[in-house]
Amino acid sequence: MDKKIVLKNVFFDGAKRDILIVGNLFEKVTRPLELADYEGAEIVDCSHFAIMPAFYNGHTHAAMSLLRGFADDMELGKWLNEYIWPTEAKLTPDDIAVGSHLAVLEMIKSGTVFFTDMYWHREQTMRVVEEMGIRAAIGVTFAEPLMSPEAWAANVDFLKNHTGESERVQLVVMPHAIYTVGEEKTAELIELAHAENYKIHTHLSETMTEIKNCMEQFGCTPVEFWKRLGGLNSNFSAAHCTHFTASDRKIFAESGATAILNPCSNMKLNSGIPQVAEMLKDGMKLGLGTDGDSSNNNLDMQEEMKTIALLAKYLGTAETLPAEEALKMATCNVAQFFGINAGRIAEGCLADCLLIDLNNERMVPCYNIYSNWVYSANSSAIDSVMCNGKFVMRGRHVDGEEEILRDARECAARLVAK
Amino acid sequence: MDKKIVLKNVFFDGAKRDILIVGNLFEKVTRPLELADYEGAEIVDCSHFAIMPAFYNGHTHAAMSLLRGFADDMELGKWLNEYIWPTEAKLTPDDIAVGSHLAVLEMIKSGTVFFTDMYWHREQTMRVVEEMGIRAAIGVTFAEPLMSPEAWAANVDFLKNHTGESERVQLVVMPHAIYTVGEEKTAELIELAHAENYKIHTHLSETMTEIKNCMEQFGCTPVEFWKRLGGLNSNFSAAHCTHFTASDRKIFAESGATAILNPCSNMKLNSGIPQVAEMLKDGMKLGLGTDGDSSNNNLDMQEEMKTIALLAKYLGTAETLPAEEALKMATCNVAQFFGINAGRIAEGCLADCLLIDLNNERMVPCYNIYSNWVYSANSSAIDSVMCNGKFVMRGRHVDGEEEILRDARECAARLVAK
Ligand SMILES: [Zn+2]
Ligand SMILES: [Zn+2]
Repeated sequence: MDKKIVLKNVFFDGAKRDILIVGNLFEKVTRPLELADYEGAEIVDCSHFAIMPAFYNGHTHAAMSLLRGFADDMELGKWLNEYIWPTEAKLTPDDIAVGSHLAVLEMIKSGTVFFTDMYWHREQTMRVVEEMGIRAAIGVTFAEPLMSPEAWAANVDFLKNHTGESERVQLVVMPHAIYTVGEEKTAELIELAHAENYKIHTHLSETMTEIKNCMEQFGCTPVEFWKRLGGLNSNFSAAHCTHFTASDRKIFAESGATAILNPCSNMKLNSGIPQVAEMLKDGMKLGLGTDGDSSNNNLDMQEEMKTIALLAKYLGTAETLPAEEALKMATCNVAQFFGINAGRIAEGCLADCLLIDLNNERMVPCYNIYSNWVYSANSSAIDSVMCNGKFVMRGRHVDGEEEILRDARECAARLVAK
Repeated sequence: MDKKIVLKNVFFDGAKRDILIVGNLFEKVTRPLELADYEGAEIVDCSHFAIMPAFYNGHTHAAMSLLRGFADDMELGKWLNEYIWPTEAKLTPDDIAVGSHLAVLEMIKSGTVFFTDMYWHREQTMRVVEEMGIRAAIGVTFAEPLMSPEAWAANVDFLKNHTGESERVQLVVMPHAIYTVGEEKTAELIELAHAENYKIHTHLSETMTEIKNCMEQFGCTPVEFWKRLGGLNSNFSAAHCTHFTASDRKIFAESGATAILNPCSNMKLNSGIPQVAEMLKDGMKLGLGTDGDSSNNNLDMQEEMKTIALLAKYLGTAETLPAEEALKMATCNVAQFFGINAGRIAEGCLADCLLIDLNNERMVPCYNIYSNWVYSANSSAIDSVMCNGKFVMRGRHVDGEEEILRDARECAARLVAK
């Protein structure tokens, strides 16, 4: 029989309620429970908690947590060529496991239960996700300058065999970017994704240099490039989208594709800021991502959510992107793209949620819980995190965190010594 | 005899050190301690901690914490006229005490030990500051449309009598803004501040409407208005400074005045963003403030610090405002304006500091502690807060926090019911 949990006296939708979780789903949310619902259930006292949907991180590079703070305050070319790429070249599969552990720990602590990952040695990251109890869309990453023909073919085989997919892990076709995967190869990957029923995720229109080179090489914007190849549809999502033209926004909105904005990374690397107010006006589907720990320098979706809300008001009006809509960009909008029925506290949805401490000073007073959550709180208000009906953090403790930090420190010391 | 504290094995300046605090000052920071230094000292085990300067908040309205989340996602006029001002009119001196308590609790929890406050019923706020053990520059606030001639005169008397100044509290002359204090009254306040040796603090160039009206009424920018009246010098600081012209920046820099930037509030209220990269280039003195809880919606200097660092890189280059410089804007730059020798961990400085938990997942790995602190961490990494040589938070606990939250909830319920 499925495990039952009752979140007793939890604040949701303006009232204290008892919420019933059966197995991995919300069974009763706003309906009053009956006596039978409590039978055999684990009763969790939530009288000081509010419930919020857990975060879904639409774009990151998890194992880059090992390079947090390794190189900052420098321009992109120097950062990549002199620091990030030479160090990444030294990373072993074991290092990737250590880095993924650190990233997943950080995500759980800040309320994230799902991430879209674009990196290498994906098997290590998949194993960590399974073990730590959260979800991920794991990229099978393609980049011509960085891969041998054999490695490329192995990736294609991997996708054709659907290796490693599970209840909480899905694979995604990830051409790295327009400047690392050419026209022909991009077309092949679009066909492969379509044939094998995978989503596509890529970096798109991140910097003005990318736009300029794309115009010179292909005579069109990056969005137009993808449209021309037939890759722009509701199975396509792109990170950044920092430099869309008005026409790009219209094409993208009509295609049903999803843009994953990463405003903190964009600002920190001097790439620009996404025109979020115009994107909303043009009806684009929008989600949020943190990008990697080496360019943000954290995986905190709450910071990203507040940042996009502030930028939306700066670029639009004070009424643009109200708190509840910003929250959707960090939760259900990302889940929806990946076909996951989650990111909302609603009957029939996957039980992915956060218990928020109403005694945290930033949640007081509480006229509007969404305002408090989006604009005022930070991750210290998260007491517990649930993924798929199971707690992955309780009372701010995550199993194994001491070992994860120890391994990460040792690994970082080895990297520097190499 | 002065109390002695040794912070044992604390990480500072690249090494584990023992730091000696005597009374309210750092006595030995980088020099090795001698046996006698440990005698009679309280020894604090800091083997898992790094030390950082505590935050100095250059601009806020503390008691507005009672209105956190009361009205969001609306334009400034509606926000002020329909929500904030009618509700503020109901605030009693007791309410101000409750709100100030909540604000100071929130500040301590996020590592702030000093704030510049512009509000009403200042005696209540001063009492709370004394009681909770932190510092403040408390405004004697002037706004012609909101004050009777008697209230104005009482404020002037208060300043002439230097009532309520103490070791941790200084008074500041605060004309609210150009649009609430006219030319004649502003000139009088400049004279008063000069005669009685007070600093001046005001709202300046916050919105385009303010600039436009100032140009129409006085034929000059707000900065030029203050220069013309002789008020622009090293004793002058202004909040916002969102819409400075190139000439304003030059005038301001030459005057030695300090600009207190509030980027989160500016974005949230659609006021604009301060041109921080240009300001740095022009050699302006810059500090940071959070503005009030009803427009930010928190008093978290760390968020403000990361936000200004990101904006600086967006507006300048990826190299603009490195982490350590951003930290100075949130610490010693504000202290320095107020003539307080603090905001740095250095011998002879006031012992205002934070103990940062190096086992917090966002502080790992630690290639560059300033990068981690400015870009990655949030307030959950702050274990302890010291002000004036005394701990005001230890192990994330602040004395009396339960009562403060209870009182704030009750007060908010009364405000809504009124
Ligand atoms: Zn990326
Ligand atoms: Zn203000």
